[in-house]
Amino acid sequence: MPIYNFSAGPAVLPKEVLQQAAAEMLDWQGSGMSVMEMSHRGKEFMSILAAAQHDFRELFAVPDNYKLLFMQGGAIAENAIVPLNLLGRKGQPATSDYINTGSWSTKSLKEARRYGNVNVAASSEDRHFAQIPERDSWQLSKDPAYVHICTNETIDGVEYQFTPDIATETNNAPLVADMSSHILSRVVDVSKYGAIYGGAQKNIGPAGLTLVLVREDLLGHALPACPSAFNWKIVADNDSMYNTPPTYAIYIAGLVFQWLKRQGGVAAMEQRNIAKAALLYDYLDSTDFYRTKIASSCRSRMNVPFFLADETLNESFLGGAKEQGLLQLKGHKSVGGMRASIYNAMPLEGVQALVAYLKEFEKRRG
Amino acid sequence: MPIYNFSAGPAVLPKEVLQQAAAEMLDWQGSGMSVMEMSHRGKEFMSILAAAQHDFRELFAVPDNYKLLFMQGGAIAENAIVPLNLLGRKGQPATSDYINTGSWSTKSLKEARRYGNVNVAASSEDRHFAQIPERDSWQLSKDPAYVHICTNETIDGVEYQFTPDIATETNNAPLVADMSSHILSRVVDVSKYGAIYGGAQKNIGPAGLTLVLVREDLLGHALPACPSAFNWKIVADNDSMYNTPPTYAIYIAGLVFQWLKRQGGVAAMEQRNIAKAALLYDYLDSTDFYRTKIASSCRSRMNVPFFLADETLNESFLGGAKEQGLLQLKGHKSVGGMRASIYNAMPLEGVQALVAYLKEFEKRRG
Repeated sequence: MPIYNFSAGPAVLPKEVLQQAAAEMLDWQGSGMSVMEMSHRGKEFMSILAAAQHDFRELFAVPDNYKLLFMQGGAIAENAIVPLNLLGRKGQPATSDYINTGSWSTKSLKEARRYGNVNVAASSEDRHFAQIPERDSWQLSKDPAYVHICTNETIDGVEYQFTPDIATETNNAPLVADMSSHILSRVVDVSKYGAIYGGAQKNIGPAGLTLVLVREDLLGHALPACPSAFNWKIVADNDSMYNTPPTYAIYIAGLVFQWLKRQGGVAAMEQRNIAKAALLYDYLDSTDFYRTKIASSCRSRMNVPFFLADETLNESFLGGAKEQGLLQLKGHKSVGGMRASIYNAMPLEGVQALVAYLKEFEKRRG
Repeated sequence: MPIYNFSAGPAVLPKEVLQQAAAEMLDWQGSGMSVMEMSHRGKEFMSILAAAQHDFRELFAVPDNYKLLFMQGGAIAENAIVPLNLLGRKGQPATSDYINTGSWSTKSLKEARRYGNVNVAASSEDRHFAQIPERDSWQLSKDPAYVHICTNETIDGVEYQFTPDIATETNNAPLVADMSSHILSRVVDVSKYGAIYGGAQKNIGPAGLTLVLVREDLLGHALPACPSAFNWKIVADNDSMYNTPPTYAIYIAGLVFQWLKRQGGVAAMEQRNIAKAALLYDYLDSTDFYRTKIASSCRSRMNVPFFLADETLNESFLGGAKEQGLLQLKGHKSVGGMRASIYNAMPLEGVQALVAYLKEFEKRRG
């Protein structure tokens, strides 16, 4: 029986990637070493790092005036690292703008309050985060250090289906986006952003690796309290080797990038992700046995929260799913219900199997 | 031909650990998932985390009033995280004391200057870091927030062979130690320290995991600028799950801990490490063809820098070593010459092979 793992992250990885990692575990390409055992400054690992950097830049169409950084601490650490690196652009006390669209935005803006004034320019909290606040309702500052958005809310299941243009109202403030849970799942115009960051453990690879893209003119404005290891300029100047990088996680991410290229790249993945999400949402919309709560204009293609109309059936639903090899469907504790995370590495067959189970369970218990 | 990897870190891992990791890569113990794919909050990974915590505490004889934290960023990040967490113990501006014994101590104290006054209580810089400053020469502050030492200098090759007692002179200031490159290589009386930290990539596992031990009474004194993800109290209160931990690195570290237990634990490893180091140093001492620069009272058992008397032979030496399967012997660029790192996972046979090569090369080129 095939196993399909709907974990929100750490999450499913392509089987081919895991097979290659297993085969190379004790001896990477005749080097006599595991990738875990290599000096990060040796030519073997340097070649792995360079390939991963090159492939990511190609896949994500990163313009030349952006630095790609491999860091640590995930998006939660980066929530502090962003203000520590960007608030120095403006005289103190500096202000940054945040759009609150769910659990992750809320965490980000709370952390930013440690370092400066935070203007919550828009929030959908009063609508239970069921939609992105309309762009024309945002109350942006005139000259913020940056404007922060979370373009896919992993827990709440909302995703930006547009790139907000904020330049004219904000004196060209950089737009900063937490893309942790949908990076590489769709085509993005990187040039619209000042910085983009994401934990790797959804669409990229193992937990413990953070990707940061930052436009070069935004480097060099860190607050004095910024730790050297998290100072984007220091990390950039040292090509992500100021401290020992998470070498094995970078290696796995590099294998995922190679796999993505074999799949046809990000544009091809986006088409598959649209098809996978449509299959699931269309079925959920067709019945009253299951419910969704997110406005159709901003439903996430990656994270699909749904609910049984009769929540007393939750345990039975999850137990039956597990018997069918459909794993980790339980919703986040703050939202309840179910959640299917259908990242790049989830094949269409996995979503088909989930929909078949949804139908079967409804027929049996509805 | 057996391969022996003398990298200073990331470094050699036990072959049994890598074999198990390869075998379990696609399906951990019948779960149908790779460890990389598991939700960090699922019961499978929680059991991996709990076992790693338990085994480390047992191996390192950690008293009950210490928290064990699994963090990210390595020792370089922790150089900032230590003052961010401990300087709040004293009124501002607080002072911390540092003992400068080499490259790593120097980095630590420079980073600490971001956050408060630093008193360099002793330094062997004027002796080219060839020995630990004598304890009775330390000019400690009367009431520092903490006293910092690096108990094994990976680059310079000096190691504390004593635990400094600092309590009476410093109003019971906590002793904080960077033990990155020799943790678990020798028996340590943890109760003599307020906090101990180390990057995992020498004696513990893959890069990207940092271990922190902290006495409970030292929690809760972080400066306001401390990022939540690096606030020891927040990490402790969330059992190292405030942000997604580096799950695969923790799994590998856990396998290393199990391997160490099968080897007889830390006391048994210490005896082997003494024997391995003696074999190498004894040979280096017996000839003028090779040289060492570190005082015999504080030579590191883990990192052995040595030099060819005729440095024009360096490339030839390294090339010949590689042909014999003796890898990554080139010294750190700041020190030059050669360096053999002989961590726990380096078998005695590896050191024997190195000594045999040292003799053979000397005979051929001496």
